[in-house]
Amino acid sequence: MSTSKAEDALAAAATALLGDRRLLIATNRGPVTFATSADGSLRPRRGSGGLVTALGQVGRHVPVTWVAAAMSEGDRRAAGDAKLLRQAAGDDDSIRLRFASVERSVYEQAYNVIANPLLWFLQHQMWSLPERPIIDAGTMRAWERGYLAMNDAFASAVLSQARGDERPRIMLHDYHLYTAAERIRRSRPKAVLSHFTHIPWPPSSIWLAIAPAIREGIALGLLGNDVVGFQTERYAHNFLRMVETFVPDATVDYETWTVRRRRRTTHVRHYPISIDVEATRRIATSRAARRRADQLLGAARERVIVRVDRLEPSKNILRGFLAYEALLQRHSRLRGRVSFLAFLVPSRTGLKEYGDYGRKVQNEVDRINARFGRAGWRPIQIFYENDYAQALAGLSIADVILVNPLVDGMNLVAKEAVVVSQRDAALVLSESAGAFDQMADGALPVAPADVLGTAEALATALAMPVEDRGKRLAKLRRGVEREDITWWLRTQLEDLGEIAG
Amino acid sequence: MSTSKAEDALAAAATALLGDRRLLIATNRGPVTFATSADGSLRPRRGSGGLVTALGQVGRHVPVTWVAAAMSEGDRRAAGDAKLLRQAAGDDDSIRLRFASVERSVYEQAYNVIANPLLWFLQHQMWSLPERPIIDAGTMRAWERGYLAMNDAFASAVLSQARGDERPRIMLHDYHLYTAAERIRRSRPKAVLSHFTHIPWPPSSIWLAIAPAIREGIALGLLGNDVVGFQTERYAHNFLRMVETFVPDATVDYETWTVRRRRRTTHVRHYPISIDVEATRRIATSRAARRRADQLLGAARERVIVRVDRLEPSKNILRGFLAYEALLQRHSRLRGRVSFLAFLVPSRTGLKEYGDYGRKVQNEVDRINARFGRAGWRPIQIFYENDYAQALAGLSIADVILVNPLVDGMNLVAKEAVVVSQRDAALVLSESAGAFDQMADGALPVAPADVLGTAEALATALAMPVEDRGKRLAKLRRGVEREDITWWLRTQLEDLGEIAG
Repeated sequence: MSTSKAEDALAAAATALLGDRRLLIATNRGPVTFATSADGSLRPRRGSGGLVTALGQVGRHVPVTWVAAAMSEGDRRAAGDAKLLRQAAGDDDSIRLRFASVERSVYEQAYNVIANPLLWFLQHQMWSLPERPIIDAGTMRAWERGYLAMNDAFASAVLSQARGDERPRIMLHDYHLYTAAERIRRSRPKAVLSHFTHIPWPPSSIWLAIAPAIREGIALGLLGNDVVGFQTERYAHNFLRMVETFVPDATVDYETWTVRRRRRTTHVRHYPISIDVEATRRIATSRAARRRADQLLGAARERVIVRVDRLEPSKNILRGFLAYEALLQRHSRLRGRVSFLAFLVPSRTGLKEYGDYGRKVQNEVDRINARFGRAGWRPIQIFYENDYAQALAGLSIADVILVNPLVDGMNLVAKEAVVVSQRDAALVLSESAGAFDQMADGALPVAPADVLGTAEALATALAMPVEDRGKRLAKLRRGVEREDITWWLRTQLEDLGEIAG
Repeated sequence: MSTSKAEDALAAAATALLGDRRLLIATNRGPVTFATSADGSLRPRRGSGGLVTALGQVGRHVPVTWVAAAMSEGDRRAAGDAKLLRQAAGDDDSIRLRFASVERSVYEQAYNVIANPLLWFLQHQMWSLPERPIIDAGTMRAWERGYLAMNDAFASAVLSQARGDERPRIMLHDYHLYTAAERIRRSRPKAVLSHFTHIPWPPSSIWLAIAPAIREGIALGLLGNDVVGFQTERYAHNFLRMVETFVPDATVDYETWTVRRRRRTTHVRHYPISIDVEATRRIATSRAARRRADQLLGAARERVIVRVDRLEPSKNILRGFLAYEALLQRHSRLRGRVSFLAFLVPSRTGLKEYGDYGRKVQNEVDRINARFGRAGWRPIQIFYENDYAQALAGLSIADVILVNPLVDGMNLVAKEAVVVSQRDAALVLSESAGAFDQMADGALPVAPADVLGTAEALATALAMPVEDRGKRLAKLRRGVEREDITWWLRTQLEDLGEIAG
């Protein structure tokens, strides 16, 4: 579908679903956050992160009211200031901003005790299980008075935007908002409600480890929705199994991907998220990005391997470098002829696990550079900063892109890479990235713990004739162009439209 | 069924399966191992471990030829000495011993690179995934030249015992022998072959992390069997999913629990292993054990909590003590009135992970004892030794048994405990122990990471009226008496008998 046709189809799906309603979206992090200036006034700042970027598209196509958590003191103050919110959203009213506001201590418990340290780690299977997590009285307090309270606040904020509407259309997002739907459903039994989980959904044996009140609260909370969406079929299947395991009065149908409970049906679907292809290209082909690409290419050796990742353990950066080391070890003719450029974006730098991991990565890089480097050739170069245009510039000049996460809900770098590549890059992709399901045909697969296999996949990619790389890349690129962010949104709106009848 | 009836049924199943054949059993660790004496002669020693104990029963009922790995230099020397093997097995010929013998370096690679550090850890999900495992060239060499070679040696040893028999009856056991069946099948296409995995079978997302050659080798190796057995239905299901994920030319049927591949059918079943109820009781009621029980009871406070475990991370001993600490913290009336006796059996003490874990356990115990202990009352007492009779004595006097592993293929302590209890013990049991499937009705369930929930389960157990405890225990005991080790073996022999036709 051409871009404009795709946008027309999206607009049609939105109209069919909404009529003259606004779409209600709820996410933890919103499109705008407020900081308090020195003079006490509130200054809006654009939010960042994949989710905000993805959903930022929505407002272009449908009128949206977007409820986000008041994360800062500024947000809490701005929450009641209608004029300020209107200004910050842009005055055309296509997006309305609202905050779900709770006391700072409540938010801290929801966010810094439950959502990030417990749920994110659990769903990415990043625990060393013999020692963590430890569900203690503090955890359960944070669950009840933090997470559930925050979800209640979201439910109230959403409901107050749906006054007089028996069947509001509501999309809830991600691991901060697992229980809001159930509470919304109680006030609006006929609401059209969906939830989308952006991160992986692990098997039941992982959920089995944590307190029944939490895992059952999550399962029941999600069953308040009409549609529960995941990135991949495997995650959707894992959710069905979880419901079967922990919700005895639910009936799970693996054929129709539905759950029946108390005369309501929840559809369990997968909608692999994607990128805004044009916006990504626009940034990658900006004058600044192209200049940077030329600089990078000029400084690099004949062959360029590139990775772009937040610097954190689930991205499996350590094993990526060990694989590169094994490559140089086993294929000595590559020494001095290849450059590995790693664009690593600082992430949750306050977290001990992340800090420790970052230091280990740096130590390994230093060791490998010391082992193989020589005058004029540094085998690995790290770019440790948050510079999106530079990262795209890096991807654009790569011969080989390495995307080898241990676990990843989707991984948009893989999709960005095939869209911006200027040199027919080969994509080495972990089978455990959500993106693998769509990109298996074209990518070179690796198992994330398989350092030797990753080294050999890099060798294969580097040795591949450019025309083969080109064919693979073209196929991958067509896939991303076809199933882009507009497609991701449209398929969800269509499914909701069918349910709304 | 009475014991003698059960034994008759087992004998009937064995005869139906075997006719005048011997049953061929293959396990890594055998019933006898040989040490070299100072004078150079070989001295047999009884093997230990749950698997050997369980299978040791078999020879009482059916003529068995038992092939084990030559683990020691003594075993390697004994391998060729028919007379010595006959003497060591007991001269009545009910059990014949044979060794699968390979060079020490081959065995070391199979055992100390693949089976224990890789497969055992992987299947118990004991990794901190961001750092381990690392599949490198050494791992792959150990897989090919160690693990596969060792399995080949087992296949040869088994085949040499099946000369002239087109359809030998063969039972292979556990994670050391995943690929032997395929090789046996090649020489004896009509063999009746089963494999039983004693440890957990994790979800496919765990297998996804490791090298394709290993995970596919394991799946294909096991599909060489007619029956692939697991401890629980969940593990069997996980195996079906694994085959579906990694063996594209196999057809998986979740209704009939079968896999079709290349015109052969593999039945995927679960057979929860159990204990020899009478033998366990005999030891627990021996004069020495009863004296020890009296001593332990005399030294303990009014209420006694007991755990028995190998000291290692998957047993979740740390969180067990944290739960006990939370119990004392939250229920102050219990202080000074309860004793926690922990019988911890030394295990793989050379492994760093185990050593580190042991030290952490000791530190926590010291801390908790220092925090709550007072003159005459030590809240936790550790018995760190391998003394089975003492451990049963401990279980026999318990008011509450705590069995809270993170992951456990079965856990026989839970079954031993309900059989030997003299004081109507309440069983607090982790939902992620294999034993939970059979014991859910009667045990108090806990989620292993749920320290608070475990503390509350202990409180509930301690507060439970003795008659309630008695009713629960009686139900659990009847279950173990019904589904004991004879039952475990008989159901497998019956299934194989049906397949043999």
